[in-house]
Amino acid sequence: MGRIVVEIMPKPEILDPQGKAVGGALRHLGLTGFADVRQGKRFVLTVDGEVGETSLADARRAAETVLSNPIIEDVVAVYDADAR
Amino acid sequence: MGRIVVEIMPKPEILDPQGKAVGGALRHLGLTGFADVRQGKRFVLTVDGEVGETSLADARRAAETVLSNPIIEDVVAVYDADAR
Repeated sequence: MGRIVVEIMPKPEILDPQGKAVGGALRHLGLTGFADVRQGKRFVLTVDGEVGETSLADARRAAETVLSNPIIEDVVAVYDADAR
Repeated sequence: MGRIVVEIMPKPEILDPQGKAVGGALRHLGLTGFADVRQGKRFVLTVDGEVGETSLADARRAAETVLSNPIIEDVVAVYDADAR
């Protein structure tokens, strides 16, 4: 069974209130070294058999249609988890 | 400015209703090649200056205390975004 990872982050120009809240919590705990925190999503899609060009293309389509909201999010990466 | 990525996924033995719902949506759209979908989180922490051992250690501590819930989630990776 292969695994494809899809990484999605809020677009740089979009406010990220979740990330801001996490950044505040870190400072509160004394972890003051982080100037900014952004929170995105990471999906692992399991494929029957090996990851090939077809399943990667399907995963890219999934990333752009279902897994992300293209108005506010960027698909950062789509890759075969076992090839890294 | 350096950037540290923190990747968090639900533990394998934990049910992931969000992932299941996404998997159902993909099948509904005709993307039937994915046997399973798991949804996790991806954080990007911005560091003043370069990423060093201290900021990576702080990010690991943040990952284990604030960014993840260790009962139901695993910290999959903590790495310097510019070193990959």
